[in-house]
Amino acid sequence: MSNIKVGIIGFGTVGAGAYEVLRENADLIRSRVGASVAVKRIADLDVDSDRGVPVDKGLLTTNAEEIIDDPEIDVVVELIGGLTQAKEYILCAMEKGKHVVTANKALLAEYGHELYDMAERCGVNLEFEASVGGGIPIIGAMKGGLSANRFRNIMGILNGTSNYILTKMSRYYWPYEKVVKEAVELGYAEDPPTLDVDGTDAAHKLAILISLAYGSAVSFKDIYKEGITSLTPDDIRFAQEFGYCVKLLALARDRGEEVEARVHPVMIPQDHILANVNWAYNAIYLEGDFVGPNLYYGLGAGRRPTGSAVVSDIIELSRRIANKEKGLQPPLAHYGRERKSISIKPMKSLTMPYYFRFSAVDRPGVLSKISGVLGQHNISITSVIQKGREVNGPVPVVMLTHEACEENVMKAISVIDNMDVVTDKTILIRVDKGISDK
Amino acid sequence: MSNIKVGIIGFGTVGAGAYEVLRENADLIRSRVGASVAVKRIADLDVDSDRGVPVDKGLLTTNAEEIIDDPEIDVVVELIGGLTQAKEYILCAMEKGKHVVTANKALLAEYGHELYDMAERCGVNLEFEASVGGGIPIIGAMKGGLSANRFRNIMGILNGTSNYILTKMSRYYWPYEKVVKEAVELGYAEDPPTLDVDGTDAAHKLAILISLAYGSAVSFKDIYKEGITSLTPDDIRFAQEFGYCVKLLALARDRGEEVEARVHPVMIPQDHILANVNWAYNAIYLEGDFVGPNLYYGLGAGRRPTGSAVVSDIIELSRRIANKEKGLQPPLAHYGRERKSISIKPMKSLTMPYYFRFSAVDRPGVLSKISGVLGQHNISITSVIQKGREVNGPVPVVMLTHEACEENVMKAISVIDNMDVVTDKTILIRVDKGISDK
Repeated sequence: MSNIKVGIIGFGTVGAGAYEVLRENADLIRSRVGASVAVKRIADLDVDSDRGVPVDKGLLTTNAEEIIDDPEIDVVVELIGGLTQAKEYILCAMEKGKHVVTANKALLAEYGHELYDMAERCGVNLEFEASVGGGIPIIGAMKGGLSANRFRNIMGILNGTSNYILTKMSRYYWPYEKVVKEAVELGYAEDPPTLDVDGTDAAHKLAILISLAYGSAVSFKDIYKEGITSLTPDDIRFAQEFGYCVKLLALARDRGEEVEARVHPVMIPQDHILANVNWAYNAIYLEGDFVGPNLYYGLGAGRRPTGSAVVSDIIELSRRIANKEKGLQPPLAHYGRERKSISIKPMKSLTMPYYFRFSAVDRPGVLSKISGVLGQHNISITSVIQKGREVNGPVPVVMLTHEACEENVMKAISVIDNMDVVTDKTILIRVDKGISDK
Repeated sequence: MSNIKVGIIGFGTVGAGAYEVLRENADLIRSRVGASVAVKRIADLDVDSDRGVPVDKGLLTTNAEEIIDDPEIDVVVELIGGLTQAKEYILCAMEKGKHVVTANKALLAEYGHELYDMAERCGVNLEFEASVGGGIPIIGAMKGGLSANRFRNIMGILNGTSNYILTKMSRYYWPYEKVVKEAVELGYAEDPPTLDVDGTDAAHKLAILISLAYGSAVSFKDIYKEGITSLTPDDIRFAQEFGYCVKLLALARDRGEEVEARVHPVMIPQDHILANVNWAYNAIYLEGDFVGPNLYYGLGAGRRPTGSAVVSDIIELSRRIANKEKGLQPPLAHYGRERKSISIKPMKSLTMPYYFRFSAVDRPGVLSKISGVLGQHNISITSVIQKGREVNGPVPVVMLTHEACEENVMKAISVIDNMDVVTDKTILIRVDKGISDK
């Protein structure tokens, strides 16, 4: 029986998780592959720390080239993350004819086209199940079981840290800062959790999903992103009064020649299936033209779930190598010659309903002034909540609108925020019904 | 560019759906495959009915052998269902070296081992994504993205008709017969919906999931099954009072040398993610040893979702054929030489909590007599609801138990049902926490 040899570059949380799966489930994996799969070498700058998994010290090296240059190694697993060395390692490994597995969402989102092209040019496979949704096999579903569909709508809760924070805020009405502090203490968030809470991490993952859906790398910088840092318990409570739940969503919609692509806090109806995805869980809700609505739910991060996803890619590649399969599945499961470029619809041209919270002095006529500005910008109001007079300070005026154009909304808010009766910046949350057709 | 030729046997709902996908999304499919995919022939005994999709009459034949014997046809798609001709057609097609796609859950559940062996012997692929969960790509997830895991727990809502009926009963408290009558009128249920409501259809699908999880065909007849026909709105309401929801679940649990495998109504906590899967939707909740809890949700039946799943298999096979890949993935994604047989744990040896509704005359001491019998059988009670006296007829006595042994429960119920104070058969619903570890 042949023996597939794997090299792992990066022995942090995910690397240790992948190694742990390969070690604990070696017999299952042999049955799946029809050959045994062995880790020949693990490279990391730190070869001394205890990773919580027993590992033969002889496997460890600080030199990644010992993996990339080793002719015996069939599969290179890149798990260092980031945009610098990781890219070089992957490109070199592919040039040397090695199949590559990576979990590097930032790299795929920002330089995916280079990697996909190189994989096809070198005739190797590039697999990245762990890059989106942790253990959730969403990449495989889009490349496989859903491959007959045009994707009309993709909505994802793709960042567990921000979903944890929003869940806590939605249940206990703690302010953002207090929740983050606790999440850091409990190990649910990094300190500071910048890329998690500012939407960057979710946008990276969205870029990958869009590329898979439409068969072409997307321009990452064109994805609009906005984080959760300015959300308050008050806004979450008002949203609930209107029958909504606030989630940080990554959204993509097919709009014919263009695609909507954005990450920001969204008010979705409380009975939408994504509204019930809580704590550190991730979920991806998809609508295909034939399959209709689908949901995939699971743990989006963590050593064991992410290790599960990395090893599923190793199994698939190892099976092909053991079977001497020469055929190649393109990284995005579309053949390049059919590829079209994807352009992202400018944010300002989108239309949707909005939630506004205005901070205004408590004086007669203020509501009329604000709604006057909205009316001039073609924004019509469906509901208003105006809370009773407070002894000190301004009163919040909360509104939901009909569908309005983002560009008009931004202009109106800018006018309103400069009014002398308005005491603070207006808070805005976009509203979504959660279905593909408006 | 090569041209992959497909033959479809069976032009009912699913056959027409698959043809519709191939037709409408031909350009997308060409991009996925790297070659065009054409339906060369469709066989059905009825070639005259309108299937709601435009089809060239010249493609149609009443003779399936025109497909099986056609050397130009690469992929045979069996969509007639049932246990008779379908099996012969599939075996013959494989013997002639053709790859096969099927949606035939009954055949796979009851004769899967013969088909899997034949596929491996003939060196062809046998794919069946549409056999479980309609459009939900659960087969691909288990063979692919989750392949590194041992499956500890599988819980599925696998029959849309029974889930629709239970959802309606749970919301409107209509009796079973009234809901079924309406479901038949609305086209959500067949008339009569026997295999849907008696658990057979869900058990077929469960057999397939277990085979995939553990790499070996399972003995279908050993799967315990019980339908929803004796559930009443009263029981559903009592379950709700206890904080539960009633669902027809297909359950499998890894118990070391044996596997639990059963289909029956289950009370699951209202906050379990499966409790929120309603109407005709299906969902599969899985726990893997590394990935943790995962959920897959979508439409479990219908022309377009099932067509989507059938065509995803056609795409995968066509891509391999176009790429001249010789390698073979075994039907259950485990290599035969590693396969162990799966034995199902006898139902009577299982332990779990139970719900009972006793119908007893309203007389002092009755509750004590019933609980005495339970105590003698080692069944201890956690909660009791006894409703007030009614003018006519018996009063229900409703109980929840601690974990008890199924064999003891059956003996106790048999004793109780023969007591002279008991006026009707005791209703029993099994209770489940919905997690792998008890």
